[in-house]
Amino acid sequence: MRGAVIYAPGDVRVEERENPTILAPTDAIIRLSATCVCGSDLWAWRGADATTEPTPMGHEYVGVVTEIGVDVKNIQVGDFVIGSFFASDNTCEICQAGYQSRCTHVEFVGAGGAQAEYLRVPLADGTLVATPGMPDEDLIPSLLAASDVLGTGWYGAVAAEAGPGKTVAVVGDGAVGLLAVLAAKQLGAERIIVFSRHADRQKLAREFGATDIIEERGDAGVAKIKALTGGYGPHSVIEAVGTEQSMAQARRSVRAGGHVGFVGMQHGVEINGEELFFESIHLHGGPAPVRRFLPELIQLIWDRKINPGKVFDLTLPLDQAAEGYRAMDERRAIKTLLAP
Amino acid sequence: MRGAVIYAPGDVRVEERENPTILAPTDAIIRLSATCVCGSDLWAWRGADATTEPTPMGHEYVGVVTEIGVDVKNIQVGDFVIGSFFASDNTCEICQAGYQSRCTHVEFVGAGGAQAEYLRVPLADGTLVATPGMPDEDLIPSLLAASDVLGTGWYGAVAAEAGPGKTVAVVGDGAVGLLAVLAAKQLGAERIIVFSRHADRQKLAREFGATDIIEERGDAGVAKIKALTGGYGPHSVIEAVGTEQSMAQARRSVRAGGHVGFVGMQHGVEINGEELFFESIHLHGGPAPVRRFLPELIQLIWDRKINPGKVFDLTLPLDQAAEGYRAMDERRAIKTLLAP
Repeated sequence: MRGAVIYAPGDVRVEERENPTILAPTDAIIRLSATCVCGSDLWAWRGADATTEPTPMGHEYVGVVTEIGVDVKNIQVGDFVIGSFFASDNTCEICQAGYQSRCTHVEFVGAGGAQAEYLRVPLADGTLVATPGMPDEDLIPSLLAASDVLGTGWYGAVAAEAGPGKTVAVVGDGAVGLLAVLAAKQLGAERIIVFSRHADRQKLAREFGATDIIEERGDAGVAKIKALTGGYGPHSVIEAVGTEQSMAQARRSVRAGGHVGFVGMQHGVEINGEELFFESIHLHGGPAPVRRFLPELIQLIWDRKINPGKVFDLTLPLDQAAEGYRAMDERRAIKTLLAP
Repeated sequence: MRGAVIYAPGDVRVEERENPTILAPTDAIIRLSATCVCGSDLWAWRGADATTEPTPMGHEYVGVVTEIGVDVKNIQVGDFVIGSFFASDNTCEICQAGYQSRCTHVEFVGAGGAQAEYLRVPLADGTLVATPGMPDEDLIPSLLAASDVLGTGWYGAVAAEAGPGKTVAVVGDGAVGLLAVLAAKQLGAERIIVFSRHADRQKLAREFGATDIIEERGDAGVAKIKALTGGYGPHSVIEAVGTEQSMAQARRSVRAGGHVGFVGMQHGVEINGEELFFESIHLHGGPAPVRRFLPELIQLIWDRKINPGKVFDLTLPLDQAAEGYRAMDERRAIKTLLAP
């Protein structure tokens, strides 16, 4: 099969790879209908994450099951399925509490490289969720979004306790930030403020439910959001970037006693305990337990109540994966869908 | 009046000071029935907090109102009152949400020095809570505990979401940690595990509701608590010390998706963002909004349902404040009550 492999920063090649096979009786193999490039893939593309050997890339996937292990019960060959980037048994106490990304048997599905034609998914019964039937073609981008960016933005909004009567802010206007806006809106937030400097992203943010845009950052951004919220700051802030600056923006914006949900993959962030102590905020986040939300998100998409697939503003054949990375890195695209 | 003043590490003197007077129309003056030494006072005693000039000490108080400003409505001269170390208006949005320690008009009551005969309390209407009548003498230590250590331990338990069906751990066997045990018990926790190496404190912890004691720390402590909790760790951990080691103990002990409530005044703690991200824990804490809990805590004490005053295992006349500090520093006492 064809699959994307990173060799070095800026060097992603689509090459011939071994087809995946069933390794454990709980595995499934799927033929991908669509895959995509994640903001977190750019850390390796930019060299912020080291690439020490050629590494298969991609961890977002939707597709049709072609083979299952003998112990797989809930998923059938022929099912159209979506799963998270983390495989989970969905039965341990941690999974049952909704933290499938920390399942006691967790495995990174992306280890197999989802930017490819086929993918092995471990713990298929606990990881994959089948759609009610074969989806219409136009639903596939939205279902693909549920595999990570929608689930991650949704988790950010849940972790920040977005809900009715709340003012919610979003730091980051990438796909996750934009879908956190959509999530906050669905969860009933009264007002949604987005930090963004890009006209195209601001437009999509407003379409997803943003009520206010702040172009300022740092001190000026904090001053602006305090002014917009009676001096208090928003009740909830979703951090969807993962840098020192974005975490500071989130923590300094939120009101005392408020909630920061942080879902941006952290790079180089240090939090001073004494500062955090006197902020009196709630801090919760991490890799999203996407599996917790999949049944609900799939239904919302199936019923055409949400259209998260709009974050894909560039579609390329899988063979042009490198251009998909480049376009996102240069901010020419919000998110690239790759068609195997 | 007589009042304690710190001059340098290890140098606390009780000397003649000016009686406090009404400075703002929202002030009250109280004659202290009892005051005490806080674990956080030891940071200055030990030199971990710098003392740059002679500074009045103490921020825990109960007593009788002797004078009120013209704008004070809820509190009368002659009332027996308890208040938090932070004065709050109790009307702003932050107070109404239960974060009186971050009130938009917050003032540190301890600035006046509560280890004294009299104390000025700002924002009396929002800060002080009167008891149903004059308390029996034996209730005074418990009511005094509500002013800080009980309120702080209680907040730690609430921040850690201790409750029915939960396994709760407490890091720290000082007065706050011990009262966090009492709080977790009152909040309905099923199992309460305390990290402690001191027989007298273990005894009081068990009396307050602890079901298990762990004497190990660091890796061994983590291994022990995981073994006690099916490999998962407790649902809730209350951090009641404030050091790098105690925060690490709390974060490494709690289960994925669990809650750490941290109420130990942080000193020299740095939290790595990437580590925190992959822990997937909830982190919440800070200076306790004691005012939120005072009506409930006073009632529990008044009805003799809890006896938090047991943490005072040393009572001294105010004039011997220095010995009170020394006894706590040398761990000869859990907490010292000072009788003005």
